[in-house]
Amino acid sequence: MTTVREATFDLFRQRGMTTIFGNPGSTELPMLGPLPDDFRYVLGLQEAVAVGMADGFAQASGNVAHVNLHTAPGVGNGVGAIFGARANKAPLLVTAGQQARSLITMQANLTNRDAVEVPKPYVKWSHEPPRAADVPYAIAQAIHHASLPPAGPAFVSIPMDDWLVEIEPVDFSTQIARTVGGRAQPSPEQVAVLAERLRSARNPVFVAGPDIDASGGWDAAVELVESQRLPVWASPPTGGNRIGFPESHPAFQGMLPPAVGPLGETLSGHDLVLVAGSSIFPYYPNIPGDFLADGTSLIAITSDPDEAARAPMGDAIVADVALTLRALVDALPGPAEREAPPARVELDPPAAGDELTGGEVHATLAELFPEDGIVVLESPSSTVALRNQLRLSRPGSYYFSASGGLGFGLSAALGVQLAQPQRQVVCVLGEGSAQYAITAFWTAAAYEIPVKFLVLRNNEYSILKWFASLENVTGAPALDLPRLDVAATARSYNVPATSVAGREELHGALADALAQDGPRLVQVDVAAGMALA
Amino acid sequence: MTTVREATFDLFRQRGMTTIFGNPGSTELPMLGPLPDDFRYVLGLQEAVAVGMADGFAQASGNVAHVNLHTAPGVGNGVGAIFGARANKAPLLVTAGQQARSLITMQANLTNRDAVEVPKPYVKWSHEPPRAADVPYAIAQAIHHASLPPAGPAFVSIPMDDWLVEIEPVDFSTQIARTVGGRAQPSPEQVAVLAERLRSARNPVFVAGPDIDASGGWDAAVELVESQRLPVWASPPTGGNRIGFPESHPAFQGMLPPAVGPLGETLSGHDLVLVAGSSIFPYYPNIPGDFLADGTSLIAITSDPDEAARAPMGDAIVADVALTLRALVDALPGPAEREAPPARVELDPPAAGDELTGGEVHATLAELFPEDGIVVLESPSSTVALRNQLRLSRPGSYYFSASGGLGFGLSAALGVQLAQPQRQVVCVLGEGSAQYAITAFWTAAAYEIPVKFLVLRNNEYSILKWFASLENVTGAPALDLPRLDVAATARSYNVPATSVAGREELHGALADALAQDGPRLVQVDVAAGMALA
Repeated sequence: MTTVREATFDLFRQRGMTTIFGNPGSTELPMLGPLPDDFRYVLGLQEAVAVGMADGFAQASGNVAHVNLHTAPGVGNGVGAIFGARANKAPLLVTAGQQARSLITMQANLTNRDAVEVPKPYVKWSHEPPRAADVPYAIAQAIHHASLPPAGPAFVSIPMDDWLVEIEPVDFSTQIARTVGGRAQPSPEQVAVLAERLRSARNPVFVAGPDIDASGGWDAAVELVESQRLPVWASPPTGGNRIGFPESHPAFQGMLPPAVGPLGETLSGHDLVLVAGSSIFPYYPNIPGDFLADGTSLIAITSDPDEAARAPMGDAIVADVALTLRALVDALPGPAEREAPPARVELDPPAAGDELTGGEVHATLAELFPEDGIVVLESPSSTVALRNQLRLSRPGSYYFSASGGLGFGLSAALGVQLAQPQRQVVCVLGEGSAQYAITAFWTAAAYEIPVKFLVLRNNEYSILKWFASLENVTGAPALDLPRLDVAATARSYNVPATSVAGREELHGALADALAQDGPRLVQVDVAAGMALA
Repeated sequence: MTTVREATFDLFRQRGMTTIFGNPGSTELPMLGPLPDDFRYVLGLQEAVAVGMADGFAQASGNVAHVNLHTAPGVGNGVGAIFGARANKAPLLVTAGQQARSLITMQANLTNRDAVEVPKPYVKWSHEPPRAADVPYAIAQAIHHASLPPAGPAFVSIPMDDWLVEIEPVDFSTQIARTVGGRAQPSPEQVAVLAERLRSARNPVFVAGPDIDASGGWDAAVELVESQRLPVWASPPTGGNRIGFPESHPAFQGMLPPAVGPLGETLSGHDLVLVAGSSIFPYYPNIPGDFLADGTSLIAITSDPDEAARAPMGDAIVADVALTLRALVDALPGPAEREAPPARVELDPPAAGDELTGGEVHATLAELFPEDGIVVLESPSSTVALRNQLRLSRPGSYYFSASGGLGFGLSAALGVQLAQPQRQVVCVLGEGSAQYAITAFWTAAAYEIPVKFLVLRNNEYSILKWFASLENVTGAPALDLPRLDVAATARSYNVPATSVAGREELHGALADALAQDGPRLVQVDVAAGMALA
């Protein structure tokens, strides 16, 4: 005989899931205490932070990450971040405590009345075991669901009196021993058709999406692009939670614009668009036009059946992105005879003026950026400038929220750093976006997680002002954000922080922060408006 | 012809809903701009704050409050607070933007794919109109659902391109002109039976719940209690989001314990328990026992059919609480012949020691508390001490989260103060619970909302340590909260704040804060552990 708790912790061990992110409440205590010595608990002071940390940890480790939340109100606070994890395809096990079984039917305080419904639109699977004995089995299932492609969050609600129930091996031993794999190659026929479409294309183009990075497909993508002489675009940054191709590569042309008309125009002139590891496409503002120009066809490789089904144009192959790219390289007859792709259009230098611009900030960051550094980005008004200045060119170097929601950046940066302790994480935030997960600074300090934070402060929701002008909306309230001081707030949570203005001061402060151990924050005042270069 | 936007804003005006709480994103801009001059927008920097403010505003104003959220990630961040509003029976209209209709089927970025599903377990009604022309009608319906008993949140998702669509009067004029009322009295037969049960009871007792306050039933409750010579208990504080009876009244006996066994024992000896405006009961820890002693019967008055159906014992009458109490008073033959209720058991003075205790803090607060003051409370380890020390005795003087979730207190205090500008709101928080909505300090400062914050800092999640000892859980991680400094964080958001230790210093700082205009915060260090007296 063993207990539900012992069997479940054995399962976690077996899966390498010995880190638990969470925010505890009374309904979680019987699971958490006593925490075995080989486990680590990372506390977030609000649930959005706990889920965001787990999202970053999952993506940067490639393994399922576990986040434990407090019954209904705790899960509720985490739903936005769970939506983000779904968009990011982060394999998450989300567990939550539940009232004792004897108190659920009467809906005693802290009953999660509709436990499985709450996160349902955003989790791949949602379950509350009908018997205590099924808890380890349910959690094993959730881990499988989370990791099978497309990866994402899965949820289990666990009545608090289940943990110490004694169970028999038949209830858990075969169930938790199972492994399940879902990385699939396309059929030989699909590969052959794809290879022939590419071989015979006059002027094909490659669009690199985030799942190249998640599937480990950088090498295959570079090999394909070089042998076939393909120009490369990144899929629109709005949905690009990772970078799928080296942005300093000579074939790299830039980022596709995130709107129907402009994107179609950008790809016009190509007879074939080969998209790997991206939805088609993460459009954001509504600028109508042709999805693709006449004479342009599209084929997408994705491990996500929903992405394949919902695309408004083009064909799709559902299979692992890296394996498909590799199979495609192997199926092609050899290097193509095409002309080399053109050099990327030279970008203007970052706008300069009396006030520092986002582009200048990121040019400064680029001068100092560690060779093996990782960016976690949530600065909506300077996303494009950062990409253009840093030209990140190593796998696993960039994390961004594909959901369009805020709060991911600050919390995910901690999870990424914990998963990649040998690489320096730089978290780039707007002073507005920092607010959605601000208490993560406490966790950074309390757990000595050495993320360096760079906060661009422009006293407004710039992206919304930009969007309003695009949509001819005037007079919207609350687009200004006066008197936010993220440096002061970070200091109040024990993260050493400094506030600077001007490029030289910024350079010095950033260099200093990067040279220190532990978390550090640099806040820099920048001009209002969008930073695109 | 008019636009969807004009018709909807006319509806808001007609319902007195000219305050909009929110956190905007691109999908909300076409609704928000230009904001008419007679409307006010109150910005929260994270959605849990926006919903919490609206919850407080709705409860303290008695009117439906409107909170506007950003498509999927914004609604997601607000789900915990929406759960809270449901538990608090706060009439809320929750609206959210949605991608343009033409981009939804392809799930462009910021599409709220399952818009109506996301908040569904916690809202009374959830809808996305299938045509732009139906938006005003849908919002009118949601307002009706929110306000009908039991009040609660209702949700409408609105595609962003709907607002400027032109519509005909037939689409909106009769729909938005409707009024709907749901305050119901019980049938004469029910009243007669209830009166006879009470009249013939030997030793009846009255339990006062939060919906006495929400329904405006204080006067009727006091009249009933005095004429019938009933001792009075407050329903367990865990579910008591409002106070239903003056706690300094001679008939008042204290708060019922929030667990099955102890609560049943507390009420033993009474032949009839009359409960008004409370669920039966908001139990929290699992301490089994008899729901009621042998010989004790129970009858509950509630406007909530779910509360009536799910109670594990006793009979229930579903009707408006205040109207039913009034009808009961009128149906009774006159004053009862019973003995006067006993005096409340004298409480020990607050524990004192080297360090200030929560009880001493609240004794100090009681000395200074404004006659017409309002408490918004989220200090789980000192809830009981505050109630015992302050003995609040005016209607609408106390707001607490009935959901058991955190983040309500700090944000709701702002909404309560905006709804009751003539009364001083004092928001009492633990340093841990303050973290769930910490950015509300920015809103307090930016909108000059003169709430006085009192933060009790004990460097731990005391309530969890207490609960762990109750459940024999040892070694749970993350129950200590070292190095939080809410005063410093509040200052970083421009709320003047001071940190004190010791009773005299506290008295001076609190008196000073109460004498100032604008928001002020006093943080006081207290001993670890629960404060019950």
